[in-house]
Amino acid sequence: MTKIDSTLDNIRIVLSEPWHPGNIGAVARAMATMALSQLYLVRPKEFPSFEAERRAAGAVETLNNAIVVETLEEAVGDCTLIIGGSARTRTRPHLVLGPREAATKAVEEAGQGAHVALVFGTERTGLLNQELDQCTYHLRIPTSDDFSSLNLASCVQIVCYEIFMASLTDRPEPEDSSCYPSGSDVEYFYKHLQEALDHRGFVPKEMREPTMQKLRRLFGRARPEVGELKLLHSLVRLMKG
Amino acid sequence: MTKIDSTLDNIRIVLSEPWHPGNIGAVARAMATMALSQLYLVRPKEFPSFEAERRAAGAVETLNNAIVVETLEEAVGDCTLIIGGSARTRTRPHLVLGPREAATKAVEEAGQGAHVALVFGTERTGLLNQELDQCTYHLRIPTSDDFSSLNLASCVQIVCYEIFMASLTDRPEPEDSSCYPSGSDVEYFYKHLQEALDHRGFVPKEMREPTMQKLRRLFGRARPEVGELKLLHSLVRLMKG
Repeated sequence: MTKIDSTLDNIRIVLSEPWHPGNIGAVARAMATMALSQLYLVRPKEFPSFEAERRAAGAVETLNNAIVVETLEEAVGDCTLIIGGSARTRTRPHLVLGPREAATKAVEEAGQGAHVALVFGTERTGLLNQELDQCTYHLRIPTSDDFSSLNLASCVQIVCYEIFMASLTDRPEPEDSSCYPSGSDVEYFYKHLQEALDHRGFVPKEMREPTMQKLRRLFGRARPEVGELKLLHSLVRLMKG
Repeated sequence: MTKIDSTLDNIRIVLSEPWHPGNIGAVARAMATMALSQLYLVRPKEFPSFEAERRAAGAVETLNNAIVVETLEEAVGDCTLIIGGSARTRTRPHLVLGPREAATKAVEEAGQGAHVALVFGTERTGLLNQELDQCTYHLRIPTSDDFSSLNLASCVQIVCYEIFMASLTDRPEPEDSSCYPSGSDVEYFYKHLQEALDHRGFVPKEMREPTMQKLRRLFGRARPEVGELKLLHSLVRLMKG
């Protein structure tokens, strides 16, 4: 049990700009039922709140221990695996995981001491593209073609359930996750790459963003390890001329 | 798609004496997201209700089509597989299924034309022993030892999710391979990259091969599409200086 607990303590749920305080409470409750306790709130509209406490229905400890931050970066900067919920059909299916795959990955890496974040966007729009760009993987919960409007707390409930289920099963040959760079290291690489491209006038200004998007998707799929990221930095230095 | 729909139409969710109208709405929403439409209500405290409609958030059809009955017998009488939610550790563990097993069984039998019911008890007590006695199997959702208070709609969400997932298996998604470059195009890219690195004296001669191996592994994992490979060629041109 202790082992499971410490593994699950390395997994956090991050809500980006939650709008309804009731949802924050329902999320805390959903987490607590599945033995998850680390809740991060990025610019919540209202917190703390009575409505959140009411909907937490006993999971007040999870709620009271929630960490409120100003930016997504602060919430996930120390994480080596960042999985962002996405309702959209993205054009790049390679990055998209189902809840079961995402949970397996999260539990495996957290079991080796890595910090893992599961990020959910604001109720009306979900995660913005620029938020999804900061994620290692995207998570898509399969839904009916006719009605896909999953409640925020329901999304979190399904994902936490899968994480708890994955933590209960025997974990075969875990992969070493200490080799992956942190979220901020990855962002630093993209910044470096963009600087180099800007320096060389690689694309016209209006193509700057879409080009970086393409490159993020491409490198995101490869998920470079620490040593590989270092190698990529060296290539970027060559690009500078 | 038609086959799945008819399979799922054979599976109903039964709520026994739901107390909070909001929960009925949230259950309708949870069902609709997972393509389930058959909702039975046994002696609901309040139905129809505005609060139920509000929480259904668009799943009004599921809500409006709900069938209200007086006894559990009426709700499940024509079913050959009846699975009852139970939070308790029952004395007969051979009857107890987890959500995944229950869903697999439900989809299997529904696929053969059987009527299947998943029954959930009133909020405060869950299903009574005499109600559980009417069930073929009991369903227990694994929860934390410290906090097991799953919301009614959350229970239904998890179970419907597992049912939907079970209905999706056996259908491997056809992968479109036309977007990927040919083997020789990929080799041509690595040749181009190596030329650029040689031209700039990127690594000493003895490190040339291992470095290219590293880069092959990295880009190989990303599996660039045709357009992305073109973009990578442009970056390599920058590396030339």
